[in-house]
Amino acid sequence: MDYSTMCPKYEAAADILGKKWTGLIIRVMLGGPKRFKEIKEQIPEMSDKMLTDRMKELESQSIVKRTVYPEMPVRIEYELTPKGRELQPVIESIQSWGEHWM
Amino acid sequence: MDYSTMCPKYEAAADILGKKWTGLIIRVMLGGPKRFKEIKEQIPEMSDKMLTDRMKELESQSIVKRTVYPEMPVRIEYELTPKGRELQPVIESIQSWGEHWM
Repeated sequence: MDYSTMCPKYEAAADILGKKWTGLIIRVMLGGPKRFKEIKEQIPEMSDKMLTDRMKELESQSIVKRTVYPEMPVRIEYELTPKGRELQPVIESIQSWGEHWM
Repeated sequence: MDYSTMCPKYEAAADILGKKWTGLIIRVMLGGPKRFKEIKEQIPEMSDKMLTDRMKELESQSIVKRTVYPEMPVRIEYELTPKGRELQPVIESIQSWGEHWM
């Protein structure tokens, strides 16, 4: 095991997963493409501003893809990318350890 | 899925895993009981103070157990508890996602 190469990538991943609400937002989005309002409805305790910030971060990390449908009124949908969908087992393993031990 | 109960335990777990060096320290300790100096040798870039702080946190979380052997000179060993050992698949899943995607 080469420990020297473990750190940056592990820590970058753990940083993302450790941000407040991120695990929950990704879990909600595993259910398929969602509009902002639909995500919000499933996590009512989270503020609009917080969800906006998190979605921007997740988009900049290519974990979430944002699609604008040029309808009237415009429809915007958020969807997990393959990178985002592959977080499912990671989040589940954190969740399952947390439920057992915390 | 009851999202309202997911948050605190997931976030407490993700908090621990997201602290700088913690993933690496636990990985080194998966190799069996270690003295401070032995952990330090495997992670030379980490300062003594940082390792001391992290070990105290991990001990207070019951992830690490500290045993003092009353020899001359005193020998102190750190060992993962069952709670700590069960972090192995969690850390591996974060690491594997990070290596692939970050």
